[in-house]
Amino acid sequence: MKRLNTRDAGFESAFNALLTNREEQGQEVTTPVANILASVRKEGDTALCALTERFDRLPVTPATLAFTAQEIAEATAQVSPELLEALDVAARRIESFHQKQLPSDMRYTDAEGMTLGMRWIPLDAAGLYVPGGKAAYPSSVLMNAIPAKVAGVSRLAMCVPTPDGVINPLVLAAAARAGVTEIYRVGGAQAVGAMAYGTQTIRPVDRIVGPGNAYVAEAKRQVFGHVGIDSIAGPSDVVVIADSGSDPRVIALDLLAQAEHDELAQATLITPDSAFADKVIAAVDAELKVLSRTAIASASWARNGAVLITRDLLEAVELANRLAPEHLELMVDDPEALFVHVRHAGAAFLGRFCPEAVGDYVGGPNHVLPTSRTARFASGLSIYDFMKRTTFLSGGPDALRRIGPSAVALAHAEGLQAHAFSVSARLDALAEHTPNA
Amino acid sequence: MKRLNTRDAGFESAFNALLTNREEQGQEVTTPVANILASVRKEGDTALCALTERFDRLPVTPATLAFTAQEIAEATAQVSPELLEALDVAARRIESFHQKQLPSDMRYTDAEGMTLGMRWIPLDAAGLYVPGGKAAYPSSVLMNAIPAKVAGVSRLAMCVPTPDGVINPLVLAAAARAGVTEIYRVGGAQAVGAMAYGTQTIRPVDRIVGPGNAYVAEAKRQVFGHVGIDSIAGPSDVVVIADSGSDPRVIALDLLAQAEHDELAQATLITPDSAFADKVIAAVDAELKVLSRTAIASASWARNGAVLITRDLLEAVELANRLAPEHLELMVDDPEALFVHVRHAGAAFLGRFCPEAVGDYVGGPNHVLPTSRTARFASGLSIYDFMKRTTFLSGGPDALRRIGPSAVALAHAEGLQAHAFSVSARLDALAEHTPNA
Repeated sequence: MKRLNTRDAGFESAFNALLTNREEQGQEVTTPVANILASVRKEGDTALCALTERFDRLPVTPATLAFTAQEIAEATAQVSPELLEALDVAARRIESFHQKQLPSDMRYTDAEGMTLGMRWIPLDAAGLYVPGGKAAYPSSVLMNAIPAKVAGVSRLAMCVPTPDGVINPLVLAAAARAGVTEIYRVGGAQAVGAMAYGTQTIRPVDRIVGPGNAYVAEAKRQVFGHVGIDSIAGPSDVVVIADSGSDPRVIALDLLAQAEHDELAQATLITPDSAFADKVIAAVDAELKVLSRTAIASASWARNGAVLITRDLLEAVELANRLAPEHLELMVDDPEALFVHVRHAGAAFLGRFCPEAVGDYVGGPNHVLPTSRTARFASGLSIYDFMKRTTFLSGGPDALRRIGPSAVALAHAEGLQAHAFSVSARLDALAEHTPNA
Repeated sequence: MKRLNTRDAGFESAFNALLTNREEQGQEVTTPVANILASVRKEGDTALCALTERFDRLPVTPATLAFTAQEIAEATAQVSPELLEALDVAARRIESFHQKQLPSDMRYTDAEGMTLGMRWIPLDAAGLYVPGGKAAYPSSVLMNAIPAKVAGVSRLAMCVPTPDGVINPLVLAAAARAGVTEIYRVGGAQAVGAMAYGTQTIRPVDRIVGPGNAYVAEAKRQVFGHVGIDSIAGPSDVVVIADSGSDPRVIALDLLAQAEHDELAQATLITPDSAFADKVIAAVDAELKVLSRTAIASASWARNGAVLITRDLLEAVELANRLAPEHLELMVDDPEALFVHVRHAGAAFLGRFCPEAVGDYVGGPNHVLPTSRTARFASGLSIYDFMKRTTFLSGGPDALRRIGPSAVALAHAEGLQAHAFSVSARLDALAEHTPNA
């Protein structure tokens, strides 16, 4: 863990090192992924089944690629009523928030008589990748699938690997609750290839979303352009801005909730109170002795953790903007007064009783958020990822007479004669038919 | 040019070939681009100047990288008043349309007492790549720069190569009109590297937009993640749906306005009227004899042009949806009746007096549009490319009591103990302080 104070000489260079030291070291998977994608594209189900047998040790045929409705119902029946209720609380709140994102179409007629605007239209089909094994998070199924359903995507296919045939029943229950229409027991680059190019069994989709390992991320990169993808997720991070009004143990747990994800995760405390920082650091050390995922959390905190001491809370927000965190907690008495100064953060959690972990599950806003400082230019997953806009332009003879000549002038200036003639031929025809024009 | 009729046997397979035959054959520039980016990242201005001298035969120093205000004013003075007026008509209409795209922030408090929503925030800095030489289109400068300014981006840097020192004055005039704050005479992958990583002279930006050659496209691909990029543009295309109510020559010019861009461009006519199709084809052949860019347009029409004869206009729209064109013209009496059935198109042009060429310059909607059938999932450039969203969640003790337990249950189910404790520690503290809770 790095402890820095903005009053110290050398703060700037140490802070800049924090900004860059986690840039991803890409694993060299380009060629194997390209080979897998090519074979799925060429051989379809045959390749998909062979690769699944090879990587997941699961014999599978085109007929057993999809989970049946009965399998999904049986999995759901294994989940406790308490958990199903929690899943439902989460799903309802996520649905409600994303419904409020739904945009309106735009249409207006201007002074020149042109009618113009844009229509929002959902994608036809989306594909959702869900990692298998320990990283199979039912909450992520909800967060990826529900925005697609709310956007109006009619077909929502999901791929989840089942190594040795093992599947987390809560993942299937979450998929059913979220409205996923097809679930396939395939994973890795081969699943991405199947959703991008289609096979005899799996029809292609228009956009693929969801987290995955290095192979999945590289496969998404390679199919990008043929289909849409969401952002390539890097390791998760949180910045907690706190003062001494919070319990140090609670703040320590907020930091560790990030650190327990992944050794590359980054948890940063920013506080103007150096004594409070000491107490939080001590609480982190104490909690690390008892937490179940202590190995991961300890490594993350040791390598990537940071505690920054600032002159005041406003300087804390300035540093947070430079870090452009995925998650930003404002654990202070008046979080709104700080939040107005926030320019770069994926999601903000305001107030002492609103930790990120609430938002990870049941808050409503999406938990798929821009990592690796990309909150400078990127946003969390939303219904906009599952819709696109068609702009339109409409105008009659009068409007063309008013604005057409400017188009003709610019087209000639750019040396695009057919562009110019496409407009001027219409203007000529109008002139012929209206002698007084 | 391929002529197909939906009534013919074999239509489906011939049509499917149309859908796939233009998939990009990537030029092998990965390694040279990676080398250029690495040297700009490491050596900054030194590499940038050396590469500019090498590729553009232009001796340049850090002090002369940027165009001066005087150079820009002198260039603008070279442009005719008529053209400056046309540029201004275009700029005003583009500004007006993109202002109407500006979204509203969202904020609400729900039944559980949580306050949540999202704020739209502009990027700090955007970079605009503009190709040099013949492909230097002032209209594209307006279309890329104005949405950034309207979105509220305060810093807008532009890079344009000036091979042998040559610059199109209209490009500089357009940049000045659009509010570009810095213009650099650099191009290629080195310009993308400079904007992504920064040099001593060029500060880094958050997102890079604008068209370019294979090197520029590959450079954008490689810096993606470190900064945002717009989509990688493929060859341009149009689908014109027309009936015999239009002049065949006018429709031919609309097709050729697409074909004259690039030999890879694709122009497609879809009509239910076979005799009208014959007349359009004859008019295309006649115009190709006289147009200035006949070599390019002829090659495009011969290789990629298509004429599809359908049973009726509704079937024409169905085929257009499958083609998911960048541009869609509806040259019929009642275009709105067809437009409601359009699901996949970057931009639509409605009615006989509203050709694409009007929209390319002065319509108002953006002319940077999804190519290569990506209108299935992608949209044209917009102010959304220059803004991002921060979601927020806020709640007090009562709200946490209501929804917190569901978060705890799901966190434990996912094996994320610190997530659970981050919430349950707060719930425990509340229970201690409110004995009746």
